[in-house]
Amino acid sequence: MNLSPVSERFAAKALQRWATAVLMRQGVAEAPATLTAKVLVRTSLRGIDTHGLARLPAYVDKLATREVNAQARPRMERRHGLLHCDGDNGLGQVVASFALDEAMLAARTSALVACSIRSTGHLAALGGFVLSAAERGFFAILCQRTPPVMALPGARGPVIGNNPLAFAVPLVGRPPLVFDMAHSVVARGHVAQALREGKDAIPRDWAIGPDGTPTTDPALALQGAMQPIAGHKGLGLAMLVECLAGSLHGFVPGEDAAAPTDLRGPAANVSAFLLVINPALAVGQGAFDASVSAWMQTYLEASGLGARYPGQRQAECEQQRLRQGIPVPAGLLAELRALGRSVGRPFDLEAA
Amino acid sequence: MNLSPVSERFAAKALQRWATAVLMRQGVAEAPATLTAKVLVRTSLRGIDTHGLARLPAYVDKLATREVNAQARPRMERRHGLLHCDGDNGLGQVVASFALDEAMLAARTSALVACSIRSTGHLAALGGFVLSAAERGFFAILCQRTPPVMALPGARGPVIGNNPLAFAVPLVGRPPLVFDMAHSVVARGHVAQALREGKDAIPRDWAIGPDGTPTTDPALALQGAMQPIAGHKGLGLAMLVECLAGSLHGFVPGEDAAAPTDLRGPAANVSAFLLVINPALAVGQGAFDASVSAWMQTYLEASGLGARYPGQRQAECEQQRLRQGIPVPAGLLAELRALGRSVGRPFDLEAA
Repeated sequence: MNLSPVSERFAAKALQRWATAVLMRQGVAEAPATLTAKVLVRTSLRGIDTHGLARLPAYVDKLATREVNAQARPRMERRHGLLHCDGDNGLGQVVASFALDEAMLAARTSALVACSIRSTGHLAALGGFVLSAAERGFFAILCQRTPPVMALPGARGPVIGNNPLAFAVPLVGRPPLVFDMAHSVVARGHVAQALREGKDAIPRDWAIGPDGTPTTDPALALQGAMQPIAGHKGLGLAMLVECLAGSLHGFVPGEDAAAPTDLRGPAANVSAFLLVINPALAVGQGAFDASVSAWMQTYLEASGLGARYPGQRQAECEQQRLRQGIPVPAGLLAELRALGRSVGRPFDLEAA
Repeated sequence: MNLSPVSERFAAKALQRWATAVLMRQGVAEAPATLTAKVLVRTSLRGIDTHGLARLPAYVDKLATREVNAQARPRMERRHGLLHCDGDNGLGQVVASFALDEAMLAARTSALVACSIRSTGHLAALGGFVLSAAERGFFAILCQRTPPVMALPGARGPVIGNNPLAFAVPLVGRPPLVFDMAHSVVARGHVAQALREGKDAIPRDWAIGPDGTPTTDPALALQGAMQPIAGHKGLGLAMLVECLAGSLHGFVPGEDAAAPTDLRGPAANVSAFLLVINPALAVGQGAFDASVSAWMQTYLEASGLGARYPGQRQAECEQQRLRQGIPVPAGLLAELRALGRSVGRPFDLEAA
């Protein structure tokens, strides 16, 4: 998911300090600004370049227009055993981290804690949140509803969101398993990118055009809908996420029904569902670890030489980029420099 | 999923009475025998012929060899808020129904109830259990681990189960949404069936051979592994189910590691995970219903004429088969007659 091969590298710490300063210029207090910058930079460190620092300019836009609330105070309520987090339309990184912290706190005495999250800004990469839970010993699942972007061939337009889902599990002696996917064959951003780059054709299984037939034309694809993974199976799984992440707090779509038109996606009014499981209370740490180790060993041995589990490559990328810096491609670099100038926090970092 | 076009039809009630009598001949008491027969017959009523009455002969075998415990007494324990059901190796229909009843009872006062299920017999179609929860007003999710049967190209053998997952949601004024899938492109039974029917080739995306390459040869496919839906995405989702349905109660595979070799699958030592959500307590019945209705309307309108939601076709099939009888194909009919003779409960039903 590298944006471009032409790039300069910058130290993660320096990028994080700068991004924090930029967010603070939009009225975000130091702690939530630092947290947001940390999450975005760590996403970039792990090689998920489309969902890391590249999102900062859009976040600043949404803060400037007040679509995202810089001074948000997320609230948590517990009703009949279910946690309800109202994000107060704050930055998604702030809201999701708050929800995760509260759920992990509750999971010190409960084996399983569920939390419905509403009115939050864009969450970017879901995997980062569940990863941080797994690093604290929890098995966590996070899923999110999105505006409709997907449909099967034959449809007249998008029927449901690509509703991403992530989970992470602690592994003994290895970095956590982290899995993060959307239910579309590829993200809509890939089609937009193909169009920007002047590509003639995209694979036929990516999208349908406005007439409902699969198309290789990226322009028609953007007017149509993305195809779900595995046909009806992907659509059904997206419905499950819709029920968990949307209907469980009564979400009824309004203005958000339009599909996002660029890589950045919608920045506010996001809904999500979080499950945090404490293996030590659920079954005992040793029993849980032994079970996960057993099936993971089967998986790695049978998968052959060079087999990796989900999250392993990202963990390796993070170690490498901590040493060598995060590559920032020329296009994004120009965007960040312009952003820095416009908010009075020049991007004057030295390349690593 | 009709097994064959050549079939005779029998009334559901009559099939259920006979199946109950057959199970009672294996030492199953009347109540659990009736329950099991009801679940199997309803699965057949809904058109899922591969997972309905067709499973009865295998269940009788497993009861006869005591692999499945005819006198099982499933037990439920609550630890740190999580329900744990020990199925005592009973019939899966009995154990899952027991777990579901207990979870629904708990969900009268809790918005969300989770239950880990172990030591149960074969569950057959997961959709039937969540359907019955949705018919009582609950949003339910049920997933199950299976022995390893899936792998991506390049693997030396199966790396993980196809780990089916089902959910159901009540809809206002319509039969419930019921979604039920495994994470393989198709069930292994389809390959076995192709081989039995002497077919030369299966689609290339169904399976890999023992050398790890995709194969169209059903015999090689049975020696290899089934391919997951959507490549790494299907594999990752199967891992999520493995953690929920297996690791959450410390399941470590032993003798079950071999893949099932026929349509019937393993009959005992199954593990599962159940989530029962009470919409009225989670968010309020009206708010939940309004949300589900809103996205379902988007789905149906944009999907075009003749659009169906998951479970709709099965509900229609059930109504039709209640009127016209359940078609039993010649092969299965011969098997049921032989079974009836062998247990002293002749299959002397009159065709409908």
